Parts: sequence; structure tokens; C-alpha cells
Amino acid sequence: MTVADCIRGIRENDRAILGKAITMIESSNPDHQKMALEILAEIGKFQTAAIRIGLTGAPGVGKSTFADAFGTHLTSLGKKVAVLAVDPSSAISGGSILGDKTRMQRLTRDELAFIRPSPSGKTAGGIARRTRETILLCEAAGYEVVMVETVGVGQGETAVRSMVDFNLLLMQPGSGDDLQAIKRGIVETADAILVSKNDGGFRSIANQTKTHFEGVMRMLRGSGGGWEPVVLACSSVEGTGISEVWEMILSFSGFIEKAGGMAEIRRKQALIWYEDAVRELLEERFFGEAKMAEEYELLKTKVLAGEIQAVVAARELIGGLEK
Amino acid sequence: MTVADCIRGIRENDRAILGKAITMIESSNPDHQKMALEILAEIGKFQTAAIRIGLTGAPGVGKSTFADAFGTHLTSLGKKVAVLAVDPSSAISGGSILGDKTRMQRLTRDELAFIRPSPSGKTAGGIARRTRETILLCEAAGYEVVMVETVGVGQGETAVRSMVDFNLLLMQPGSGDDLQAIKRGIVETADAILVSKNDGGFRSIANQTKTHFEGVMRMLRGSGGGWEPVVLACSSVEGTGISEVWEMILSFSGFIEKAGGMAEIRRKQALIWYEDAVRELLEERFFGEAKMAEEYELLKTKVLAGEIQAVVAARELIGGLEK
Repeated sequence: MTVADCIRGIRENDRAILGKAITMIESSNPDHQKMALEILAEIGKFQTAAIRIGLTGAPGVGKSTFADAFGTHLTSLGKKVAVLAVDPSSAISGGSILGDKTRMQRLTRDELAFIRPSPSGKTAGGIARRTRETILLCEAAGYEVVMVETVGVGQGETAVRSMVDFNLLLMQPGSGDDLQAIKRGIVETADAILVSKNDGGFRSIANQTKTHFEGVMRMLRGSGGGWEPVVLACSSVEGTGISEVWEMILSFSGFIEKAGGMAEIRRKQALIWYEDAVRELLEERFFGEAKMAEEYELLKTKVLAGEIQAVVAARELIGGLEK
Repeated sequence: MTVADCIRGIRENDRAILGKAITMIESSNPDHQKMALEILAEIGKFQTAAIRIGLTGAPGVGKSTFADAFGTHLTSLGKKVAVLAVDPSSAISGGSILGDKTRMQRLTRDELAFIRPSPSGKTAGGIARRTRETILLCEAAGYEVVMVETVGVGQGETAVRSMVDFNLLLMQPGSGDDLQAIKRGIVETADAILVSKNDGGFRSIANQTKTHFEGVMRMLRGSGGGWEPVVLACSSVEGTGISEVWEMILSFSGFIEKAGGMAEIRRKQALIWYEDAVRELLEERFFGEAKMAEEYELLKTKVLAGEIQAVVAARELIGGLEK
């Protein structure tokens, strides 16, 4: 497959070719990397008005189930939807689109949807390492809503924050009792909090949790000017509260338009991406040499044993390059 | 001055030599850097049981005034105290110990104290760039309590957190009305919150603020096992609440002894230092070449103008090394 074939396939929304291009981007094979870079350079020409949504929250909160319900709602409105998920359990074979059949049953069969699970082995901070590149490919293929699902809680929220336009933090009913999410700065990364599982026996506690977070968000309110985070509740099973999430995101888009438009957000995202990529490539290049990686570990052991000062060890390691 | 002379001077607590050694560590002159490294490698042999205390909090909260009152209390107990401060206003001349005479009047004249202001031009995240090295020199010189004062709020708290054993967060009376400090994860870095200016007309509001933060700390309480942050109030002017801060830090030391001892904390600090130093030296080495720095900026401009994809630009920059 040539670069031109690949670009054409992506632009025509050939999902098999899109999947292959993502696999190429995730590959560490130098030939694949070279081709991936050519593809990325080319697709930069196709500007789209897609919105990128982060789905964050603790394991078990129902991110995939929500993605299925929310994505299906969007495709029913005629939107093309992509879901980029980190799959901690399965290894992906080739570029085939397996999807997470158990948790995204409807979306997997939806012609307007594209689901891409990436093996967690290639993740950094709970998101796939090549998520930003994958977002661009999906947008070039015409997907209008790109959801990025993270695994677990912790670094993921902060990492995904700089990649998406809107970050949706899912919370379990009853999770508001302690302020751990606030303490750890996780709530701060959210443009909205969505209390999941607002159904059946959980309904009453889900509402309490929603009220709790409304109070928290009022307390945390900034000095004004910015988007004020919203708290919603939904049931992915009953399908309630799902359309409200999309309406909220549309009102966010309207807010952004007034506040200077998406172009400014894209510029900021690009800058962070550039800085991250430079740092990452620099370290990759350095530690890519087996000898350096070995030396790094050896010196680390000495540092931990108190045999050498940390900064002396670092100088010795980096100085070794100059010999 | 030879390395041996310098080590001897530091060990004999010759404050002029200690000051010169710190200046050497802060210098970017390659000869100075080489000597600084030799000094650091040597003083690693002298293990001490000093405690490192971070002083953080918003500008104007009274960090220097507290350092003066607290430091004087400690020297009255016979302790040797060092204060490492970032001085945003003054430039330092040579290695002379100027001190911040207006805010640390008593400590400046104290034989048991050593005050080192570092110019803010050399800071990263509100702390002097060579703070970790400076701490080691002070400890080798026999200082038993080393305070690291940060400027402002923001990154400083997180950066200083990995350098000190105990982080004291100073809060203004009345500052508890909004939860900004919690939202921004600043409170999380604190081992204790100290409400300053508990005197005169502020007394009533200082007590309200203390009660407020006691409530916040209860809400934020972890799942157990760790040190539970304490909330205190003091007046640096009236000298009240100062000895209580030291008693609290002693009880923290006792807690750490039971929990595995300071050695484990030192190991963790050394590991973070090593990782930070490797990253920093790698970037320094790379961007130290004028051509690379120029190329970096040029590509950044193109990224911001949307002329090139961020990752393509990064590859171009790093790939340039291989030509």
C-alpha cells in the first residue's frame, strides 16, 4: 500500500485501511514509522470541525457502556463517531477492528461508528501512546465526534486533558463521600461530571451524588470567564440523560466559539504535543541504545544504594555520550 | 581553592566557603561545574540526620518572617539552621551572603544560622535550580534544619515536595473562603497548614481559617497509614505558635521512624532527583547547541501557524541529529 492509497482509503472512510494506518502509527518498525509520518504530514491538509471528547473515571464506572449509549445516540442524529479505547485485557491482532464486543454491542455494529481498542502495553498514563495521531486519522476519515476513553484514574486525566476539547469525568453513585477526586486534582480536569448508573436501586444515591458534586463545583468555581463545569446524571442502560450530555457539549462548543473559537484550542494542543513529542523522541533516541539503557539502570541501582549522589550519576550517564 | 580545601571549609562550617561552593554549584561555567561535581561526590560520604522543611504559600503570606521567627526559635534550642530562599528582587553578587535583611533581621545576625538567597533568574517552578545540591552542602556543613522557601504558588509546591521531608503550607487568615488551593492540588502537597498572622485584628479571622482548614483536612483524609496533615496557627510577630510548629515536626520525625525511617524517604528523593537530572541534562545538552535551539523555535512557529503537524515537526527536529 502506498501513502497515496492509504490517504485515499482514509478519506473514503475505508475502515480497514483506517485500522491499518493506526496500526502503522503504533508500530515501532522503522519503515512503518516513516510511512506513518508521511501519512500524518499529508492528512494535516484536511481540516475538520470534529469535537474531541475525553471519557475519564475510575474502572467500573461505566465508561464503555456510556460510550455505547452516547455513540448510538449520536449516530441516530447522523453523526459519525469514533471511540479510541485502551483495552487492558486483549491484545490486538494486526489492524483488525475487534471492538469491545461485550461493552459496546450496539456501536460495534453501527455503520457510522469506528471503535479502536489499543493494547494497554502501548499506553502512557492510561491512554494509548499514539492517541493524538489516531485522533487526526479519524478526523481525516470524517469522524465528527472522537471519544478517547482512558483506563483507571490517575495520570490519565491530565494526559488526556491536553488532547481533547472536552473532558467528561464519570463518577459512581456514592463516590462523592470523600474528596479524593478533588484532592488529587482530578475534578479540575473535568469540563463536566457525569454521575453514571442513575437507574434502578441506584437512582436515589445517584441523585445525592449529583447534588454533592454540584456543591463541590460551586465551591471550586473559578474567578469567571471560563467554562463552568456542569454536573449531570445518566443511565446508559435506560438511555436517560444521554441526549442531555450532547446538548451540553453543543453549548460548550457555542461558548468556545464566542470565547475565540476552536482554532485557539487547537493551537494550544499542537504546542503541547510538539513539546511532548520532542521530549519523548529525545529520550527514546537516548535510551534506545541498549548500552545507555543498561548504564541508566546500573547507575540507578547505585543511587538507590546511596553509593553515588543522584546528580553525579546523571552527569556520569550523560557525560558518557561525549567520550 | 582546591576541592579538598573546599570540603574542609564546608565541614568546618566556614560560611564564606559554603557560600562560594553554592555559587560554584549555581554557576554555568564548565570549570565551576566540574569542581562542583567533585565536591558533591565527596560530601556524599557525610551522612547527616538533618530535616528538610519546605515553606510554601502565596506571596505576602509571611514565609520569610516566619522563617526568621522559627529559625530563631530553633537556634535558641541550639540547632543549626539554614534557610534557602529565592529572592525575586535582588541579584546576588559573587558568593557573599547577603541575606534578606529586611525580612530575616534576627536570623541574619545569628551565628547558628545560614541564609542563602538565590536570584530568581535561576529558578524553576519557584525554587532555585540547584536547591537539592545546596541542601546537601548545608547538611555537610552541619546544618540540622534546612528550610527551603519557595516564591509564589503554583508549580513550586510540587517541585519542592520531592526535595523536602516536610512541607509546611502557610495560609493567610481569610484565605479559606474559596477552595482554589484544594482544587489546584496545593493542599495535597502539605504535611501541615500553618495559618499565619494570628495576631492583632487578624486573630478572630485566623481562627476561623484554622477551623475551616481543619474541616477540609478531615474531608481529605486518606485511607489511613500515612501522616495526617495538621493545621496550626502562629504569629511570627508575637512569637506565638512557633514552638508548636517544631513540636509537630518532631512528632512527624517520630512517625517516620516508626514507618520505616528517613532512609526510605531519602531513597525516594534520590530516585526522583536522578530521573529529573537525567532529563534536564539531556535537554540541556540538546538545546545547548545554538543551532538546535533556533531550529526548535522555527519549527514551533510553524506548528503554531498550522503549517506542520506537531509530531512531524518533532521528528524533523530530532531526526536532524542523525544527518
